[in-house]
Amino acid sequence: MKNSEFIKAYAPATVANVCCGFDVLGFAMEHPGDEVWARKKETPGVTISAVTGVTGLSLDPTENVIGVVAQKMLSDLKIGHGVELQLHKGLPVGSGLGSSAASSAAAAYAMNELLGKPFTTQELVVYAMEGERKASGSAHADNVAPSLLGGFVLVRSYDPLDIVPLGVPVELYCTVVHPQVELKTSLARSILKKDIPLQKGIRQWGNLAGLITGLLKGDYSLIGRSLHDEIFEPERSVLIPLFNQAKAAAISAGALGCGISGSGPSIFALSATEEQAMAVQHAMEQVYGSSGIEVKSYVTQVPDQGARLIEQTILQPAQA
Amino acid sequence: MKNSEFIKAYAPATVANVCCGFDVLGFAMEHPGDEVWARKKETPGVTISAVTGVTGLSLDPTENVIGVVAQKMLSDLKIGHGVELQLHKGLPVGSGLGSSAASSAAAAYAMNELLGKPFTTQELVVYAMEGERKASGSAHADNVAPSLLGGFVLVRSYDPLDIVPLGVPVELYCTVVHPQVELKTSLARSILKKDIPLQKGIRQWGNLAGLITGLLKGDYSLIGRSLHDEIFEPERSVLIPLFNQAKAAAISAGALGCGISGSGPSIFALSATEEQAMAVQHAMEQVYGSSGIEVKSYVTQVPDQGARLIEQTILQPAQA
Repeated sequence: MKNSEFIKAYAPATVANVCCGFDVLGFAMEHPGDEVWARKKETPGVTISAVTGVTGLSLDPTENVIGVVAQKMLSDLKIGHGVELQLHKGLPVGSGLGSSAASSAAAAYAMNELLGKPFTTQELVVYAMEGERKASGSAHADNVAPSLLGGFVLVRSYDPLDIVPLGVPVELYCTVVHPQVELKTSLARSILKKDIPLQKGIRQWGNLAGLITGLLKGDYSLIGRSLHDEIFEPERSVLIPLFNQAKAAAISAGALGCGISGSGPSIFALSATEEQAMAVQHAMEQVYGSSGIEVKSYVTQVPDQGARLIEQTILQPAQA
Repeated sequence: MKNSEFIKAYAPATVANVCCGFDVLGFAMEHPGDEVWARKKETPGVTISAVTGVTGLSLDPTENVIGVVAQKMLSDLKIGHGVELQLHKGLPVGSGLGSSAASSAAAAYAMNELLGKPFTTQELVVYAMEGERKASGSAHADNVAPSLLGGFVLVRSYDPLDIVPLGVPVELYCTVVHPQVELKTSLARSILKKDIPLQKGIRQWGNLAGLITGLLKGDYSLIGRSLHDEIFEPERSVLIPLFNQAKAAAISAGALGCGISGSGPSIFALSATEEQAMAVQHAMEQVYGSSGIEVKSYVTQVPDQGARLIEQTILQPAQA
């Protein structure tokens, strides 16, 4: 075994739900993202030697999602040696941008490279989902799948798992504004009702069908007409300060649509051009400008690629 | 005015709901269908001089959907003269195949031709919807839109009305078996609950998104995996004799998927080839063969075209 081989993988932030696609649709951003560094070690098991970029995340491999993902892969592949991992968080925790998903996806991708690619990227989704199970108690795929695969990804079904990559059939730019308030996914989920009115359900699936059609046909107007969420946004947006004002500002500034990213508090907007997306960013930042609430914001194209290898170093013994 | 000009239009049967697309998705069949014959008359108003093909439909233009559609078009266009209409029903009433929709669509199409095409075919949807309002009390579009436009049609929204024609991006064949029992749409609707479980809603819109993706990408396997209805079919199928057996037979015989057409009692199945669709027809007919329940059945390609002109006669005075 060459324990001098390092792999570093990157996996990006993601926007899940996308207004009308609750629990079944997500898309990747170009940045921010998380990095996982991995190398083999002689002793069995997973160790996490460092977590940088945020404070408060555990180095215990049974408590940190990257450890959980790596351990599951080692077990399933019946690999005797162990791995040492490091995590660099580019993503804030509890942002609604798929923070645990990006870590899980980067870990799965790094492990797969380190182990000689036993899996396709799509097959890694189930491993990254183990990180989501650890983080939130349920193995959601609508963040990990786009973080791994890039573009838009539909999770048609969980039982059986059916991941449908849609790619990026039409050029789109995403603006995200992240008010610096933490909102736990568990809280955002707990306020959801167990039943929904049939009439709202019909509008929701009509809009989702419209959004998918708009994406696949490259119809910006249809995408814009479809980006609505009448079920969850009214309930969840009350947890996000200035949501309604920020959304109104985004639409006024020309966004195709705007909604809650995942379970919030981040707010996303989609635009047809980068220029538009930057105007939307400016307009949304203005809303928060005088409020005393700090925001971080991002503008990125929706990328075709998700998780990727960013460094692979094989040191020769002489150099080691 | 030349009152010797005749127009005859045809509009086909349609399958609405399509398993996971309740109230928002429908597709056209090639046949059966209804025909509406129309000519101008000097006196104002609408008269219906004949209804053939079925018994029991009213000649009163305020009671028959074709009269309602024609009257609305004359009123909106502020046309002083009247029209004489005849209806030939090729479609059984109460079949779940969009019987009133086909009549309404044929009437709207015939009127538009007779009046010099003031509307696009898509604009006729709102007029044909008036017939649906008359027939069922609510102005549904998921039958009239595909009957007019052909192919698959998405009704993204009713308020505002947003009709999205999907065409026929992939070759598909439809088998329909119509058990000869009448089932009123109003009864089939009355058993629906006002609320649905969120988890079932998520599965439903995941499947609809999968179906739309499968159609637009020509992915037969995805179409098949998506053709499920976990919300309405369990409640409605109990009204249809031998539904579960017929569906199982269709799937065994190779159908991509199978479900209730509209609110029933007709059962539809989609197949990738005509040969398959005919095998499915045979298998479903076998189920009813020894039951004492008569069935009518149809196999048609899903056509690109919906309503159409089938006869236009301008008689010269000397020949009249």
